[in-house]
Amino acid sequence: MSEQPTVADYIVRRFAREGITDCFGVAGDFAFKLCDAVANSEAIRWIGCSNELDAAYAADGYARVRGCSMLMTTYAVGELSALNGVMGAKAERSCVFHVVGMPTMRKQRVGQIVHHTLGDGEFQNFANISAQAACVSAVITPDNCTHEMERLIATARAESRPAYILVAGDYAVTPVTGSAPTPYPKPASGPDLARAVAAIAERVETARSLVVLPAYTVSRFKLQDKLRALIEALGCPFAAMAMDKGILTEAHPQFVGIYSGGASSPAVLEAVEGADVVIDAGGVSFNEINTSAYTSRIDPGKLVTIGVDHVRVADRIYNPVRMGDVFDGLAGAIKKKFGYSAPPREVPARPGGKPDDPITAVNMYPRFRDFLKPRDRIVLESGSMSSGMVPLPLPEDAEVQLQPLWGSIGWATGATLGIALADASRRTLLFTGEGSHQMTAADVGTMGRHGLKPVIFVLNNGGYMVERALEADPDWVYNDLAPWNYHALPAALGCRGWFTAKVTTLGELDAALAKAATGESASYIEIVGGRMDLPAGLAMAHQRLDALYGNG
Amino acid sequence: MSEQPTVADYIVRRFAREGITDCFGVAGDFAFKLCDAVANSEAIRWIGCSNELDAAYAADGYARVRGCSMLMTTYAVGELSALNGVMGAKAERSCVFHVVGMPTMRKQRVGQIVHHTLGDGEFQNFANISAQAACVSAVITPDNCTHEMERLIATARAESRPAYILVAGDYAVTPVTGSAPTPYPKPASGPDLARAVAAIAERVETARSLVVLPAYTVSRFKLQDKLRALIEALGCPFAAMAMDKGILTEAHPQFVGIYSGGASSPAVLEAVEGADVVIDAGGVSFNEINTSAYTSRIDPGKLVTIGVDHVRVADRIYNPVRMGDVFDGLAGAIKKKFGYSAPPREVPARPGGKPDDPITAVNMYPRFRDFLKPRDRIVLESGSMSSGMVPLPLPEDAEVQLQPLWGSIGWATGATLGIALADASRRTLLFTGEGSHQMTAADVGTMGRHGLKPVIFVLNNGGYMVERALEADPDWVYNDLAPWNYHALPAALGCRGWFTAKVTTLGELDAALAKAATGESASYIEIVGGRMDLPAGLAMAHQRLDALYGNG
Repeated sequence: MSEQPTVADYIVRRFAREGITDCFGVAGDFAFKLCDAVANSEAIRWIGCSNELDAAYAADGYARVRGCSMLMTTYAVGELSALNGVMGAKAERSCVFHVVGMPTMRKQRVGQIVHHTLGDGEFQNFANISAQAACVSAVITPDNCTHEMERLIATARAESRPAYILVAGDYAVTPVTGSAPTPYPKPASGPDLARAVAAIAERVETARSLVVLPAYTVSRFKLQDKLRALIEALGCPFAAMAMDKGILTEAHPQFVGIYSGGASSPAVLEAVEGADVVIDAGGVSFNEINTSAYTSRIDPGKLVTIGVDHVRVADRIYNPVRMGDVFDGLAGAIKKKFGYSAPPREVPARPGGKPDDPITAVNMYPRFRDFLKPRDRIVLESGSMSSGMVPLPLPEDAEVQLQPLWGSIGWATGATLGIALADASRRTLLFTGEGSHQMTAADVGTMGRHGLKPVIFVLNNGGYMVERALEADPDWVYNDLAPWNYHALPAALGCRGWFTAKVTTLGELDAALAKAATGESASYIEIVGGRMDLPAGLAMAHQRLDALYGNG
Repeated sequence: MSEQPTVADYIVRRFAREGITDCFGVAGDFAFKLCDAVANSEAIRWIGCSNELDAAYAADGYARVRGCSMLMTTYAVGELSALNGVMGAKAERSCVFHVVGMPTMRKQRVGQIVHHTLGDGEFQNFANISAQAACVSAVITPDNCTHEMERLIATARAESRPAYILVAGDYAVTPVTGSAPTPYPKPASGPDLARAVAAIAERVETARSLVVLPAYTVSRFKLQDKLRALIEALGCPFAAMAMDKGILTEAHPQFVGIYSGGASSPAVLEAVEGADVVIDAGGVSFNEINTSAYTSRIDPGKLVTIGVDHVRVADRIYNPVRMGDVFDGLAGAIKKKFGYSAPPREVPARPGGKPDDPITAVNMYPRFRDFLKPRDRIVLESGSMSSGMVPLPLPEDAEVQLQPLWGSIGWATGATLGIALADASRRTLLFTGEGSHQMTAADVGTMGRHGLKPVIFVLNNGGYMVERALEADPDWVYNDLAPWNYHALPAALGCRGWFTAKVTTLGELDAALAKAATGESASYIEIVGGRMDLPAGLAMAHQRLDALYGNG
């Protein structure tokens, strides 16, 4: 038995086989034996974060790039601090393996009074909480470890949602029993697949016009190539909702634009709401952020939904069928060619304004547009930065990450750590407002510690501007913030050799952008903006508070 | 009906009647109508924090000083981020009223897809989670508001634990029905009171020796004066466990010292473990932190427990009896005088070391001892700072706040905000390690924003030293930290006029202490310490890992 790996080592090695090379987390005594296994691993590196929420956001970001990620926290205090971040990963389908170390089973059996508990000798108070942020969970024992790991991994990957894995300290150092079982087969489509493909094909063949809306899930399951092949086979236009921006490259000749309900351009409105058939490829979310306060008008009878694991055509559900199989099947089955080609992109006007002008949305966002490069990974914080950035055209293969459904501010800064670390071959850009940034700025220090080179833009407009926009009265005291000196943060957080700047004029912004574009170092640019200088999308929301909240 | 206050206004006014003058929180759109009521209130001030976890810790600290506190967060993302802080308040009995704004009932009834949800039209996914961090919870409606508020307040105050209060946005702005009911009576003792007092008195009268252990709960329920009167009537010694340090002033002539199991001084060991009767006044926690890894040896037959709402003598439970009534009853009933007087405190040796010497635990803690003043509020972070500070003698009426049971690192920095804000008439000192500080340092900016003048000591010893101490091998990579420049933080976080210093020698430390002692401004002192320079208590723990974790 002694040649068997310990539970902790087994878990780490098994996750390494999923392609994970980094584990985000904060150590704690009840998790020591798990942390040791990571520290001893040659395959997985420990990425210590300043706090667990940041670590969870980083793990979410990393999973979006790599397909899955690893988060390690300690019992109760650690796992509960991470909870909001893991719940966001559940909401937006990011496969985070959350491994939590708990007190030894020996302590649990005798009901010992230990720290990190309510002092009542109870050890089951918190497991149900963390489990609610996952799609699958298990308490690991030496006996069940090898089999439970397969179940956890298969389920979490099939759902692309978090798994919660609890390991007691004494079990962590005990050898597993049994040998590694055969991994579960990947979830497969059933007999409904052919019926679903036929049903969609029939709708497609008789449609005079068709549009595809690729959903964010296509990226989570890494099915972009399959969907692109289908769209090219169809020759139809595709649009993207905010949450799905850049899932397929916006430089594609069939990309018609951003669909945001009534706020869409006339061409997009016509292509989407005027289409005979709208294919929802992956399960788009008709939430108020994506639909500009529920102004989307798509006839449900025209909607065909290809979900992650099912298809819906009118009132008929086909199940189980996997999204990728449907893309493949349809691409082979459909004969119709819609022959759509988007008009050539307009050459955008050069950004306006004089060097001494203050920085305004109307002049700032076009500069960001021109700063973007092919293959950039662009991380957008919920708030005005998302409103301003989503309408911009993206260069070839530029990818966007944002969290508009869960919408937890602070996510973007933490996610940037994970995204930049997951793939050093691409440039990672963060666009955040300063209120959101205050939530999770600590882990800018972790980016510096690991030599990452993000380009960080912090819009300092004197408060939560998005909240000012979402109220009739923008001047509520609770939208004010402690007046940080944001550009001083990287140095205070130990980042060495970073380019930092605070810019208040367009000339200063241009100079900072030019410097950041060289990529010689990480960049952190604090941009002083107007207190109520709303980008267009947010200005529109400000006019539609009644639809948004129904209590105006 | 229109003269009735709205639900939101009613809630804020009702909490103001509990003596609350400040509300910690982070705004969010679903909580706007609640935040508005705070902003409009003349009685309660909005204290915006950088993030919800910090706000929860601040509310915990404030409640420890004021008896109760108010925390306001938004649905899902906000409340879940606060969860660990509120759960800690539950564990250590801090009465935090956690008010959460949720989407309108109109949205909930139609299952609208909104942000801050899993996108599934469900609105009940998170209430059970936050409720688990409370001892009482309610979903408020205009109809139930006035009565539910009395139930919530009475229950939470009787338990001194958090309440969770959910209010939908449309209900928040609706007038309440009915008038304010009579507040619930305070929880009272039943007929068991006289029996409990008699049983304890009988034990006391026949005891040759007696000791009292005042618990932290005495401070939570503001019963220090009653317990002090009882102890003076008894004339017996009292000791304090780490969690209960300073609950009664350590300058009292009957204070014998800190009881920490086998690590106690001989005099304390004799007074506690040698006593015929040990009165646990409030329900002390025999966790491993308080007992130096379970080295406490108190014969259960000698233990008399006066709990918050019950008494236990041998195997007999008396219930309901309130702690304060028992203190009063006993003080009147007991005739025996034990006539104990502690020997005069030794005049401590002057702190040693030469000005150019590096800062070591053996020379640093005596300097902290001499820095303390009567009536100081001393906030200790879990970790080496607690280990080093707990053994120090306290000046008259100096009070200590720490969180050794829940033990969530980062708590102390957040709690310092709440404690300093709750009572500006006393000096608030924070002693924290740098690893813990990284968790919640952001809200140092909030202290600066509100003109607070804490004295903050951050021990920078190159990692989580307490974790190094709690492992056989101290060099695990996960105990390293991003190398922040801590002393640069206050300026980066917008604190103006603060005294900041980074000290590496005893001479520099002495100069910084002298400057901080003037109290002219807030102070933030980064102390560079040795990587494994353990205070004595932690050095002992390092030798007892087997008892602590049972997996050595």
